Amino acid sequence: METVAFAAKNMHFKIRQARKEDCKEVSRMIMELAVYEKMPDQVKISPEELERDGFCQNPFFECLVAEVPEEHKSKEGFTIVGYTLYFYTYSTWKGRSLYLEDLYVMPEFRGNGIGKGLLSKVAEVGKKKQCVRLQLSVLNWNTPTLDFYAAKGAQDLTVSEGWHFIRFDEQNMGNLANEAPKDQ
Amino acid sequence: METVAFAAKNMHFKIRQARKEDCKEVSRMIMELAVYEKMPDQVKISPEELERDGFCQNPFFECLVAEVPEEHKSKEGFTIVGYTLYFYTYSTWKGRSLYLEDLYVMPEFRGNGIGKGLLSKVAEVGKKKQCVRLQLSVLNWNTPTLDFYAAKGAQDLTVSEGWHFIRFDEQNMGNLANEAPKDQ
Repeated sequence: METVAFAAKNMHFKIRQARKEDCKEVSRMIMELAVYEKMPDQVKISPEELERDGFCQNPFFECLVAEVPEEHKSKEGFTIVGYTLYFYTYSTWKGRSLYLEDLYVMPEFRGNGIGKGLLSKVAEVGKKKQCVRLQLSVLNWNTPTLDFYAAKGAQDLTVSEGWHFIRFDEQNMGNLANEAPKDQ
Repeated sequence: METVAFAAKNMHFKIRQARKEDCKEVSRMIMELAVYEKMPDQVKISPEELERDGFCQNPFFECLVAEVPEEHKSKEGFTIVGYTLYFYTYSTWKGRSLYLEDLYVMPEFRGNGIGKGLLSKVAEVGKKKQCVRLQLSVLNWNTPTLDFYAAKGAQDLTVSEGWHFIRFDEQNMGNLANEAPKDQ
């Protein structure tokens, strides 16, 4: 994919793969999304880490950005107004899968089909790469987002099958690692 | 890591990276695990797909196996008696993460520290690769497994923060992809 440009409800925008130099803008929007999710103090990532991890030999993620022309820039002067960040996962039942870590459109640009455009471009990547599903996670109080995905055919697996998210944080992962049997 | 060998409760075993030729055995244990999880009809993966996706240029997953010596082989004659399959994910709040897709030890070999050995070796990989967390998902009725991870310091994020798993299956992902704006 190179770029996609189209107009919806009088708002022109294009969707393109993020470049290394977009990481500062992506980083800004990651923080905006975390504020919306009520956990801004959780964000520890820097633009430099995004550059290192997303633009290396075997990148840890891929990223698309949505861009509007200068004349439609945000009140703060931004032209990159949305992003999505995703990566490949693997199901031992079904095979290659895609995981949508983030999908975000700045509030003043919502209602123009940008979120839908980003999501469908990610789905297109998944289809091309022979992935069999697209997964993500949403906070249970975030009804607008849950509704957004449900309306497009997504299933809530925590409700339907009872899957729970389990996490070892860095400290507990480190403790486990320290107990690992030594290599011979 | 090459191999790890040690003895616990009189059972010698070693943990090593899976090789392409182990995929048939891993495939057998994937099915055993799915039977335990009460969803055997969900398994569609073949040993050939595991070979293709795990042993290519940019593999979609990594895998460790636990092996016992011939004299301790299972009643069916198997010496590969456990496995774990994991891959790299990415948090836009924290950075590199590891996701544990499967961890399995054959029933007759449990209680020998093999599960703990596999888990701690994965944590060690995470630490070496500068991952900040190790995540996984568990079915809510699977109390022994939830207890196993909780005892080692894991947190249930569905309970504590309200995260839900959302999935677009292949059909719905395909529908989305078909609606993607065309590249220019």
